[in-house]
Amino acid sequence: MVQSQVLDRTFSALADPTRRDILERLAAGPASVTELAEPYGISLPGMLKHIAILERADLVASEKRGRTRRCRLGPADMDEASDWIEHQRALWERRFDRLDSYLGHTAKGATHE
Amino acid sequence: MVQSQVLDRTFSALADPTRRDILERLAAGPASVTELAEPYGISLPGMLKHIAILERADLVASEKRGRTRRCRLGPADMDEASDWIEHQRALWERRFDRLDSYLGHTAKGATHE
Repeated sequence: MVQSQVLDRTFSALADPTRRDILERLAAGPASVTELAEPYGISLPGMLKHIAILERADLVASEKRGRTRRCRLGPADMDEASDWIEHQRALWERRFDRLDSYLGHTAKGATHE
Repeated sequence: MVQSQVLDRTFSALADPTRRDILERLAAGPASVTELAEPYGISLPGMLKHIAILERADLVASEKRGRTRRCRLGPADMDEASDWIEHQRALWERRFDRLDSYLGHTAKGATHE
């Protein structure tokens, strides 16, 4: 259940192009909220909303120094999200393999009949 | 932009435990909406809403036969989502490596002083 909530928050946080951009930007180094907001022409409250969603998923951490809020990448490393997708892909591929071998078998059967 | 919308839809679709469960269930084989709804005790309209979100992301495909809607895994293979996460992890790790070598350098400097 707890792991499920981590996945909910991570995938929700990643489901927005601005939030994915923020993560790419922060991978290059910390930045203030003002610096993050600038390229998008969105308001500071709008940017703070995005930051809050990323912080809830532990993808970003921020702290206030004087009048400036500095953001950096958070402790979450997206391992859970990545693992879930890989697990699902493995199930998927196994299913396609079975389908492949079934179709191969059927096709062979057909040519011999 | 188009790729970005694919990521938005995929991550949004995956940001819910019931929808992730549906994908795991369908990896074992096709199922009707009624069969999918049963273990959760949610209404058919509720389940159809989840199916619609998964279909918009191409993660599920469904077709109506008579009075039954059959669902199966869709053509999307989550490669885009997986690639995005891996790209981001690579940026992340490079950053941590730089930080590591910086800290190692500083620590060494400190012991020699």
